[in-house]
Amino acid sequence: MRQRYKPWADDYLKEKNYIVLEKPSLHKGEWKKVFGNNNPIHVEIGSGKGQFITGMAKQHPDINFIGIEVAKSIIVSTVQKVDEETLDNVRLLNEDANDLLAIFEENEIGQIYLNFSDPWPKNRHEKRRLTFRSFLEQYQHILPDSGQIVLKTDNRGLFEYSLVSFSDYGMKLKEVNLDLHAIEDEANVKTEYEEKFASMGHVIYRCTAQFSS
Amino acid sequence: MRQRYKPWADDYLKEKNYIVLEKPSLHKGEWKKVFGNNNPIHVEIGSGKGQFITGMAKQHPDINFIGIEVAKSIIVSTVQKVDEETLDNVRLLNEDANDLLAIFEENEIGQIYLNFSDPWPKNRHEKRRLTFRSFLEQYQHILPDSGQIVLKTDNRGLFEYSLVSFSDYGMKLKEVNLDLHAIEDEANVKTEYEEKFASMGHVIYRCTAQFSS
Repeated sequence: MRQRYKPWADDYLKEKNYIVLEKPSLHKGEWKKVFGNNNPIHVEIGSGKGQFITGMAKQHPDINFIGIEVAKSIIVSTVQKVDEETLDNVRLLNEDANDLLAIFEENEIGQIYLNFSDPWPKNRHEKRRLTFRSFLEQYQHILPDSGQIVLKTDNRGLFEYSLVSFSDYGMKLKEVNLDLHAIEDEANVKTEYEEKFASMGHVIYRCTAQFSS
Repeated sequence: MRQRYKPWADDYLKEKNYIVLEKPSLHKGEWKKVFGNNNPIHVEIGSGKGQFITGMAKQHPDINFIGIEVAKSIIVSTVQKVDEETLDNVRLLNEDANDLLAIFEENEIGQIYLNFSDPWPKNRHEKRRLTFRSFLEQYQHILPDSGQIVLKTDNRGLFEYSLVSFSDYGMKLKEVNLDLHAIEDEANVKTEYEEKFASMGHVIYRCTAQFSS
């Protein structure tokens, strides 16, 4: 996502440190306490400007959501949305996703969303794709048996790669949708990218992959 | 495929019974003898007018091909192609695909192609789709361990269904291509439907699914 330098972002994130948690590893194994309830916790990796996670949080008040976004200048938009709408079931982490095991305990997360992730199209960057084997290992660790990943993208290469990668890892495809917007679906919360690319005529793909129990 | 009544078809097929074999179950376990060599045998289920199987036979002279097509008025077109080009590595069966185990011995077939199969879009017709579980069981039986199915279609619903069905059966996806014609590929032999639908702007999907060994 395009990043614009925002000199005020640092101060703003510090001020809102009850939304953007500063040392997430301190909460490892105790995320239920952070939210103050026993609701399931869903994680979006690469939460961008936050339209998806805030939309989901409103649609599912009985689920807690954690958005992980590495870009400071982008995550501030999500913080603003969460703050304005006082969404108690959202927390944000200004981190990259390379070490989820430092942040979450085994079995602590109910579901993972990957939305419009960077496709890293070059072969030599395969390891950076969020559906590369090493990431799947992390997801499997923090999800329960039969835990699910929901992937949305308009990028054909990433989607093809991910289907094969999930399958190769031994995951099962529970749903594959090769034109998500062909039918209007109120339950589908759109990301910013999704709206933009769909308006440009791109097909939107979605799949749900499940770890085998 | 649209069927036109061809009163001469019966006689023609009888005359060409060295190409269209009349009692295929007689050759069960002995298909190598039919071809007179030890080359691998690939099967296309629903071979239609035969552009794919005859194209493949020319491209791969060291592979034997068996086309199965239930419609008499359609299979005659393939017989004509095979006859005119004297393709020794093609045989045809004017059968439906519901009882492949009566025709082929365990492990007798090297690969299976499903091209532009009837999508049977209604839920109540799921069992008729050639990627329904009961068909996969048959394919697994006649293929070797790690045997593969290659599926091509322009039908989004059938393709989505098939990916999930393969996965649910425990097969692994070795390749998924969501726009086969995006790049010109000489190795891709097109079917009649494929040319027609691609020219109408349809996306062509392909995947290769492998049984686990």
